[in-house]
Amino acid sequence: MIPITDPADVRLDVVRDLKKADNSRAYVFGEGPLVAGRVVDSRYPLRCIIGFEKKIETFRAQRAEEGLPPIEAPIYTVTRELLAEVVGYDMHRGLIAVADRAEEPDVSELLEARTLVVLEGVGDHENIGAIFRNAAGMGVDGVLLGAGTADPLYRRSVRVSMGHVLRLPFAHLEGTSTTWQRSLEQLRQAGFRLISLTPDDRAVHLAEALVDASGNPHPKVALLVGGEGPGLTEHAMRATDIRARIPMAPGTDSLNVATSAAIAFYERDRAVGLS
Amino acid sequence: MIPITDPADVRLDVVRDLKKADNSRAYVFGEGPLVAGRVVDSRYPLRCIIGFEKKIETFRAQRAEEGLPPIEAPIYTVTRELLAEVVGYDMHRGLIAVADRAEEPDVSELLEARTLVVLEGVGDHENIGAIFRNAAGMGVDGVLLGAGTADPLYRRSVRVSMGHVLRLPFAHLEGTSTTWQRSLEQLRQAGFRLISLTPDDRAVHLAEALVDASGNPHPKVALLVGGEGPGLTEHAMRATDIRARIPMAPGTDSLNVATSAAIAFYERDRAVGLS
Repeated sequence: MIPITDPADVRLDVVRDLKKADNSRAYVFGEGPLVAGRVVDSRYPLRCIIGFEKKIETFRAQRAEEGLPPIEAPIYTVTRELLAEVVGYDMHRGLIAVADRAEEPDVSELLEARTLVVLEGVGDHENIGAIFRNAAGMGVDGVLLGAGTADPLYRRSVRVSMGHVLRLPFAHLEGTSTTWQRSLEQLRQAGFRLISLTPDDRAVHLAEALVDASGNPHPKVALLVGGEGPGLTEHAMRATDIRARIPMAPGTDSLNVATSAAIAFYERDRAVGLS
Repeated sequence: MIPITDPADVRLDVVRDLKKADNSRAYVFGEGPLVAGRVVDSRYPLRCIIGFEKKIETFRAQRAEEGLPPIEAPIYTVTRELLAEVVGYDMHRGLIAVADRAEEPDVSELLEARTLVVLEGVGDHENIGAIFRNAAGMGVDGVLLGAGTADPLYRRSVRVSMGHVLRLPFAHLEGTSTTWQRSLEQLRQAGFRLISLTPDDRAVHLAEALVDASGNPHPKVALLVGGEGPGLTEHAMRATDIRARIPMAPGTDSLNVATSAAIAFYERDRAVGLS
């Protein structure tokens, strides 16, 4: 543990003006003991941990108790006031882990999965984070990112996901907003049933879309969900095998994208059971 | 339309320092055309509408086009700068409807319902709002509020619910944090099957809890969900007929309360179908 008392210390540059400067493009941040722990245990190379002395002592003691490996990166202790001055807000969780970004897997590495979710145009970091949290919780094996989808490793996404963006593999599908849909063909060739989620009344019930004519679950499923507001593009839906809906009461609004996805993950798990 | 140009005008007091002053205890606020429209069409007595002239013109024209009744309350037009000065932030949606609070129905008036959700300790306004939005969307007939649950008519709850807190009936169950559970007895006497949602592994699968031994849906169901973190109290769960779980992958966190509730509403609708 190395105490830092000078707010201008260059070793604190990784967390300087965190809200404004968007260091998120270079680093991955885990705030608070739970998410910081998930950064430490992730495949992302840990750069340092910065926090209040007491919080860090508790954090290390708890890790030791759980039999987790010791932290192999510098640990900088700071006062609450100094940390607030540097990051630009009161980080009451008292602890932040900073890791470097790492290369993401190739799409081909995710094709062994049983259940994937494919996102198009999900631009909201909280929704991205919530989708990862729900996917990890309900047995989805990975996430594929189509065009227009925000960065899952952005600070807010990491926090809302409770660190599951660091655990659940994800990869970007190649192409622009009008061409990325072609890359869905490799999923079909790998044996995936491609299912679009849509509020459209004419679509089949979600539960029906997830099983074959005999009522057996499709062995491999890719669930496509679209962004806040517009939902999936027609172009994306046309590239899938079937359109599925969650029934909605008349006169109500469509569900939030992360909520719709959570229901689809639940229904998929209901069909196949958690492995 | 009455233009107001003086920020000190007392007619703007209802929206003064909206973030700080918490006028929410006296009034109901609907921000933006969609939610403002739902305030206008609700049972809450409309007090006034405040907004930018252009936004209000569009709002009225659209209502006229949809055949909705004209607005029977003063409409005050203000500039963007003046409104920002009065409310304390830039209200880019450009329009706010203000209504008085109204008495809530008696619990007995909700017992005709087929599906109710009962909340305990849900203290987060966004979660409350999301639960109402999801409940309205998936055919839940009403909401009962046990101890420790935040105000559904709070400004943030109204916004996140997309105004559905104004449409879906709700009522408070009497009692303190250790006595309110007794009031569940009246639900049982009215024929409701009382189902607790819990992440506990020993609970039955949600789908199983919603049907009887022959696989038929229970005619009347009350779904109980507990607050962020602690979930339902043991006291509340003991007062119910069965404990139900949404299966979770090992090593993951329990779902957000509004997400869990949404999955339960979906499964309930899957069993009975939207009426």
